[in-house]
Amino acid sequence: MSETKDTPVIKTAAMVVIGDEILSGRTQDKNIAYVATAIGEIGIQMREVRIIPDIEQEIVDAVNYCREKYDYVFTSGGIGPTHDDITADSIAAAFGVGIGYHPEAYEILTQHYEQAGIEFNEARKRMARVPEGGELIDNPVSKAPGFRMENVFTMAGVPAVMQAMMVSILPQLEGGAKMQNVSIQVSLPEGIVAKDLGELQKKYPDVSMGSYPYFRAGVVGTVLVLRSVIGDDLDAARDELITVLDAQEAEYNIQ
Amino acid sequence: MSETKDTPVIKTAAMVVIGDEILSGRTQDKNIAYVATAIGEIGIQMREVRIIPDIEQEIVDAVNYCREKYDYVFTSGGIGPTHDDITADSIAAAFGVGIGYHPEAYEILTQHYEQAGIEFNEARKRMARVPEGGELIDNPVSKAPGFRMENVFTMAGVPAVMQAMMVSILPQLEGGAKMQNVSIQVSLPEGIVAKDLGELQKKYPDVSMGSYPYFRAGVVGTVLVLRSVIGDDLDAARDELITVLDAQEAEYNIQ
Repeated sequence: MSETKDTPVIKTAAMVVIGDEILSGRTQDKNIAYVATAIGEIGIQMREVRIIPDIEQEIVDAVNYCREKYDYVFTSGGIGPTHDDITADSIAAAFGVGIGYHPEAYEILTQHYEQAGIEFNEARKRMARVPEGGELIDNPVSKAPGFRMENVFTMAGVPAVMQAMMVSILPQLEGGAKMQNVSIQVSLPEGIVAKDLGELQKKYPDVSMGSYPYFRAGVVGTVLVLRSVIGDDLDAARDELITVLDAQEAEYNIQ
Repeated sequence: MSETKDTPVIKTAAMVVIGDEILSGRTQDKNIAYVATAIGEIGIQMREVRIIPDIEQEIVDAVNYCREKYDYVFTSGGIGPTHDDITADSIAAAFGVGIGYHPEAYEILTQHYEQAGIEFNEARKRMARVPEGGELIDNPVSKAPGFRMENVFTMAGVPAVMQAMMVSILPQLEGGAKMQNVSIQVSLPEGIVAKDLGELQKKYPDVSMGSYPYFRAGVVGTVLVLRSVIGDDLDAARDELITVLDAQEAEYNIQ
């Protein structure tokens, strides 16, 4: 039996955040880190995020670019009942398909508003519109569903709703090799750590090494983050880094 | 003297956030809203944000796309002393120019480290590297400067440093018509507000109307945001909207 090392399967994703309110600075985005973390845990790497305005052509371009380039695309925002909610139409345009009421979505919303004693008016019916071929994404929070078109998942922008939708779709996503990571905080400035980290990076090309300086209450330090889909390499790189850092700290504190 | 209505001058910008740590979800971005707000106050509209990894070709593509399309481009991240800080080289590649030590940057850092009694080592000297033709951006926090190449401003990723750099460059930016905004919070669900808001949007095409539903402690409501560079239109739209909302609230509360 010959021993072969499996090549890790890398799965990638992009996120398209649709919303003038994020671009204007009025609203602080809370969805990007949530989605990145959720998919990271099942072995899908977020590779790009685009935040774009509520303009159809911008949405079409971003979604079409990302769905070709990455395994998965997640969109957030613009699927409510008002005139500025143009995401569903834009996704239909991106795929070159029509759009209409999705029977199941229509039924879900009919029941929801009936039970709540609220009129299921024309505006609310907009939320039942899904591009042809779209599959619904369950929304346990406020009922109006998101939808999936091939590798594109269209979700709400309100964080509580988007997070619930994300939980709904996780089982549909095929994860790849999990990115494992180690972070080490040292009371050393980045400029001290830099040289040896660069050397170590050359030695371990499969381990991505990042260094993030911080200044807190006048104290300088650096957080080093090692990431890899290959656990053995990560462990070896971490052990070497710790040895190097110990030596640097000893030397630095003598000076 | 004939009276003419000036066409408002619209100035636009994009931001390119360079950083694996944001994409992985490990770090919550704090710079986007800051930059969007700061430029918004002087009449520059943020139109797009891209968050991309520390990969040269990705940086080159994003910067070259954005600097053609928008009046200004702001980048954050990747200008420190370590091997993963590749932004300066990538900007040089984007502009097709060489890169080397900038005499003034080199001098600033030499003095800074001399005063601090810290070695100005090879890694730290990386922070004096600027693409040919670049003008320095002052960094009062940690000295290592950012730089400007034509309409592209390259800044640090650490929020305290990036914010200080942003303050440094604001006087260099030429603002256009200021986007004015009004937000109105109502205890009405978005589905009630939607129809009349859509009608109002058609009547005032120069006023961008957004509606943002919220659910807080079980209470449903909507924040309506009107934005325009034309103050008179904004005022008129706001007045009409308030009349409509008052009627809707009265009707809704009777039901």
